[in-house]
Amino acid sequence: MAKNVGILAMDIYFPPTCVQQEAMEVHDGASKGKYTIGLGQDCMAFCTEVEDVISMSLTVVSSLLEKYGIDAKQIGRLEVGSETVIDKSKSIKTFLMPLFEACGNTDIEGVDSTNACYGGTAALFNCVNWVESSSWDGRYGLVVCTDSAVYAEGPARPTGGAAAIALLIGPDAPMVFESKFRGSHMSHVYDFYKPNLASEYPVVDGKLSQTCYLMALDSCYKQFCHKYEKFEGKQFSLSDADYVVFHSPYNKLVQKSFSRLFFNDCLRNASSVDEVAKEKLAPFSSLSGDESYQSRDLEKASQQVAKPMYDVKVQPTTLIPKQVGNMYTASLYAAFASLINNKHSSLDGNRVILFSYGSGLSATMFSLKFNGGKHPFSLSNIAAIMNVDKKLKSRHEIAPEKFVETLKLMEHRYGAKDFVTSKDCSLLAPGTYYLTEVDSMYRRFYAKKAKDSPCENGPVANGH
Amino acid sequence: MAKNVGILAMDIYFPPTCVQQEAMEVHDGASKGKYTIGLGQDCMAFCTEVEDVISMSLTVVSSLLEKYGIDAKQIGRLEVGSETVIDKSKSIKTFLMPLFEACGNTDIEGVDSTNACYGGTAALFNCVNWVESSSWDGRYGLVVCTDSAVYAEGPARPTGGAAAIALLIGPDAPMVFESKFRGSHMSHVYDFYKPNLASEYPVVDGKLSQTCYLMALDSCYKQFCHKYEKFEGKQFSLSDADYVVFHSPYNKLVQKSFSRLFFNDCLRNASSVDEVAKEKLAPFSSLSGDESYQSRDLEKASQQVAKPMYDVKVQPTTLIPKQVGNMYTASLYAAFASLINNKHSSLDGNRVILFSYGSGLSATMFSLKFNGGKHPFSLSNIAAIMNVDKKLKSRHEIAPEKFVETLKLMEHRYGAKDFVTSKDCSLLAPGTYYLTEVDSMYRRFYAKKAKDSPCENGPVANGH
Repeated sequence: MAKNVGILAMDIYFPPTCVQQEAMEVHDGASKGKYTIGLGQDCMAFCTEVEDVISMSLTVVSSLLEKYGIDAKQIGRLEVGSETVIDKSKSIKTFLMPLFEACGNTDIEGVDSTNACYGGTAALFNCVNWVESSSWDGRYGLVVCTDSAVYAEGPARPTGGAAAIALLIGPDAPMVFESKFRGSHMSHVYDFYKPNLASEYPVVDGKLSQTCYLMALDSCYKQFCHKYEKFEGKQFSLSDADYVVFHSPYNKLVQKSFSRLFFNDCLRNASSVDEVAKEKLAPFSSLSGDESYQSRDLEKASQQVAKPMYDVKVQPTTLIPKQVGNMYTASLYAAFASLINNKHSSLDGNRVILFSYGSGLSATMFSLKFNGGKHPFSLSNIAAIMNVDKKLKSRHEIAPEKFVETLKLMEHRYGAKDFVTSKDCSLLAPGTYYLTEVDSMYRRFYAKKAKDSPCENGPVANGH
Repeated sequence: MAKNVGILAMDIYFPPTCVQQEAMEVHDGASKGKYTIGLGQDCMAFCTEVEDVISMSLTVVSSLLEKYGIDAKQIGRLEVGSETVIDKSKSIKTFLMPLFEACGNTDIEGVDSTNACYGGTAALFNCVNWVESSSWDGRYGLVVCTDSAVYAEGPARPTGGAAAIALLIGPDAPMVFESKFRGSHMSHVYDFYKPNLASEYPVVDGKLSQTCYLMALDSCYKQFCHKYEKFEGKQFSLSDADYVVFHSPYNKLVQKSFSRLFFNDCLRNASSVDEVAKEKLAPFSSLSGDESYQSRDLEKASQQVAKPMYDVKVQPTTLIPKQVGNMYTASLYAAFASLINNKHSSLDGNRVILFSYGSGLSATMFSLKFNGGKHPFSLSNIAAIMNVDKKLKSRHEIAPEKFVETLKLMEHRYGAKDFVTSKDCSLLAPGTYYLTEVDSMYRRFYAKKAKDSPCENGPVANGH
């Protein structure tokens, strides 16, 4: 069996168009700080009419292959996690095949995985399992998480975002799965779903979804600790994790989630909680589960005592989610990318716990260990290639009015046929794919912005 | 690593409501034999307003667990393949969770896999890989393929169907994967897709889809033979397969496909093709690929020379697809179930080649070997539990007019909210789940027909 299977390399793409949350507060007539402090968000990326989940995937996959020098023939599995439906039958994966068909590689397993923001994690687990299975043929796996999160006008709208992330999977990886420690929680709930098929917008019960998230977190943590203790013969606590990475719909929920884990450790009498903290949380130990999810006092007290640990173990993971917004399937891995961006030189030997959540619901807590990594798969090279700070800095701030106008146009275009886009790629970086046309048969056409000229490179292979 | 991983058990469910293809010919004013001989289909199952892909999955999963005596706690992974979208974010898998939550089992990995009719195969491969991976926790995997195939009025309408199949996955199976021999072909095409999000009906280019199917078949067979030869050190031919099972949109395409493989063997000078057949196919050996897909003379000649082998290796797999119609993700496994139904007493040691195809496109050819099997996982018990002949015989023939009326109602209901169904479960077998209501928040409610009474058993857990 292949050993030390995990993530070999990563790349991230998010649209260069974004809106500041402060400006959104003013535009929406919201109280100052409602989005920036209340949600904990700084900025939100969005796709204009020339980008979508397919173009973002094409961009990030072609970028990863090129920047790490991976021959498209070396990919034996490609799978996509997404909840942004452009076609109900044809997978996003098939839209990516022209990148591989060009060199004659069509023998590539994998399709799309779906359950809200969890699809990317499902795709990642599938890819890792493939490398460890008897059907592995020695080639790399490639996982793509791609989503555009948009909401109807109202309180959820500032929790949007957009991005695509590509993860290269194989043995002897610098980020290795500790697959024995894994806790999942799956349940039938209606916290966030997309039953209105003609609309891109979800139906959301924000309060229910937050409670579901925290309940799933508790359940996964319990399973995770149980399995850790079974295999390691000792109690797990947050002290055993160097970093904790959360699926991040908005930063405030990440803060609540970490303090919830801290409260769990307190109830479990774990070594991570000192006497002072224990004393402060003692009054809440008799609350029922339901009461504890609703208690503002507990939330406040636990966030306060967990704050020093949050600053060390979580804060370094929050950059991209705060700057780009909710990226659905890509959110967790964007948080993980933030950690690599911030700490790549000191991660060797560290353990990271990740919590993936998808409404509906499916959730898993799992563990990765950093394990060196040879060029081009070293953490420093991965950080250099992702180049997050530059990508963030070179974005274009769009006025809220223009953002709202774009969303109106996209409402119109969602599920539509027979239109051409502006083909305006002036704001896009060279090498970015963009949508040019949807014909009368709903067939979608994309082009790639040339590397060395401001205008288009001609159309790419568009199926037959 | 777990050994001899494969399919331990199966169950199949299809609606008890069906329409005869002969009656459809008359109703549609089609020439006699157009559907029965031209398509090769006998009958077509369809969901009435009280059934859908979720109710069918609930039925088949609860039936499998009960009939094989599997405790719901023993399932560690559950995944669904489907292309029938009821919700764009919430997976069908989460709708099945109440069956497991009832006994406190929420630690169940897996979500939904999507690419047209291929999603079930992707889910199956994922499940097998999981059992072989380091993340396996010793429990069973469960794969569900569920689809309702409906088409707009026109030539594709008689190629509909509906079914759900459940496959139990684990080690020491009576149907073992030969995972090293596997050929895939994935490509970006628009042969059949569902871009009109508000409609349940696909956009189909029937002629293109048939050519894509045959091209993918050629490509997969080439890869499959290449890998077989690499690992076994000898040429593969159809003589090395006891049975060949195809994804079956309609039987005529299965006939064409087998003769296409036979033609491939002829071109490869394989041992399966005798001198007489070689001579008959010789005139076609100089055709280009494209020409060969279009040549009616080749089609006729190859079907004629392959017929004796078709009767032995393929015919026993055609019962359910001909009687139930296209079941999308479930079609291939319904063909496989037909084989077990017909030949369970003589399959031990036999090899079966399976070809899975999903438009868009993704396709894989893979191999299984029958390997004994202890009760309750013996082939004879599996055949007895599936009870295909009785299920087929106890169906209710519905007049074409009533079928068309049902489809009109369903067009109206697709993506709709705030309605109750007739709750008429008089035609359903005891133990069948059915849809009772979709509320104003699009939440769906199901009930289960009681085992020992003709009326309903009360609602099932419906999420919160």
